[in-house]
Amino acid sequence: MAENISSAVIGRLPRYYRYLGDLKEAGVVRISSQELSKKMNVTASQIRQDFNNFGGFGQQGYGYNVELLYNEIGKILGLDKNFNMIIIGAGNLGQAIANYKDFDRRGFKLVGIFDVNPKLEGLSIRDIPIMSIDKLESFIKEHNVHIAALTIPKLHAPAIAKQLVDYGVKAIWNFAPVDLNLPEGFIVENVHLAESLMQLSYALTASERDSN
Amino acid sequence: MAENISSAVIGRLPRYYRYLGDLKEAGVVRISSQELSKKMNVTASQIRQDFNNFGGFGQQGYGYNVELLYNEIGKILGLDKNFNMIIIGAGNLGQAIANYKDFDRRGFKLVGIFDVNPKLEGLSIRDIPIMSIDKLESFIKEHNVHIAALTIPKLHAPAIAKQLVDYGVKAIWNFAPVDLNLPEGFIVENVHLAESLMQLSYALTASERDSN
Repeated sequence: MAENISSAVIGRLPRYYRYLGDLKEAGVVRISSQELSKKMNVTASQIRQDFNNFGGFGQQGYGYNVELLYNEIGKILGLDKNFNMIIIGAGNLGQAIANYKDFDRRGFKLVGIFDVNPKLEGLSIRDIPIMSIDKLESFIKEHNVHIAALTIPKLHAPAIAKQLVDYGVKAIWNFAPVDLNLPEGFIVENVHLAESLMQLSYALTASERDSN
Repeated sequence: MAENISSAVIGRLPRYYRYLGDLKEAGVVRISSQELSKKMNVTASQIRQDFNNFGGFGQQGYGYNVELLYNEIGKILGLDKNFNMIIIGAGNLGQAIANYKDFDRRGFKLVGIFDVNPKLEGLSIRDIPIMSIDKLESFIKEHNVHIAALTIPKLHAPAIAKQLVDYGVKAIWNFAPVDLNLPEGFIVENVHLAESLMQLSYALTASERDSN
């Protein structure tokens, strides 16, 4: 496996994976980089360069075997593995994530949901119980929790994140609009919805300015 | 206003805005690029370079006026304006977005929620009515809708997105895990949660491989 692959290349892999999954579902067996390029609106040379980071995935000219390529990219992304996931915060966003059946299908197994609100304790989402945040430590120590999705307000997020690290969680999927400042090398992936909306607002504002 | 600002710079503005907002709330009046650099974990020269795209925002050495800088970056991001927003899809994710009071406060005014499920019609979220998707066209034509958040399954997303463009919506905030293929230049901002989770899974897999 190649070692020093740029984060830009890694960032494009999920999109390749998504397109290949759609092609596979549609019964497509082979596809050339030119055809894939047209579908995905990236250049064929970009596709070949990206794939060359991983050994190329098959013969050029003859095209790629869709299922094989799908599986190979899936393996690189770790989707052939199973990861145990918990959700901290059973609000709308936490519930939305809990209800994504696709995550389960791809090996992200939801094993617990935690909330500070005592009224929610005993309820469950897709048969996964909502537990009190008091039980977080013992739960993580008893289960092998790889990923914690953090869907709580920003005020409490850094402290809870620190606890998650201490208790042994391996990675945090952070939706709280705050930087968590965790130990160097700890894996955090941020989804900052407000920042995404601001990008949209910037683009809208710039396009209105241009049309005046 | 500078014209050709790289998307990387634009991409960093919301994070500056967030930090400056926190500093402002904490009562900080002035901050040097060195102090901001330490807080944000980016180099001071990166900060100065980024800000130079917009004229520099004040004297170096003497530091930046926090409130002024916050307001200026807000203006660049279009946060001094009001945008009317609708949400298509009143599931968990749509509800989560509808319930973000912060969006309202920043000028994103939720004016309508639409869903295909007739059972939801007549209900409302934060006093915003959930309407049948049949009313989408007349609603958009009667209201000045800038942004549509698309929180529906991928199967229907491209067709609905095309309608939104035809009816006059200016930008789409897309949460459906599909590329919408809209007319060149139409503003789309994607939030692909599954792809974000795959990045996390990649990082977990790579770190497990390294530690073996």
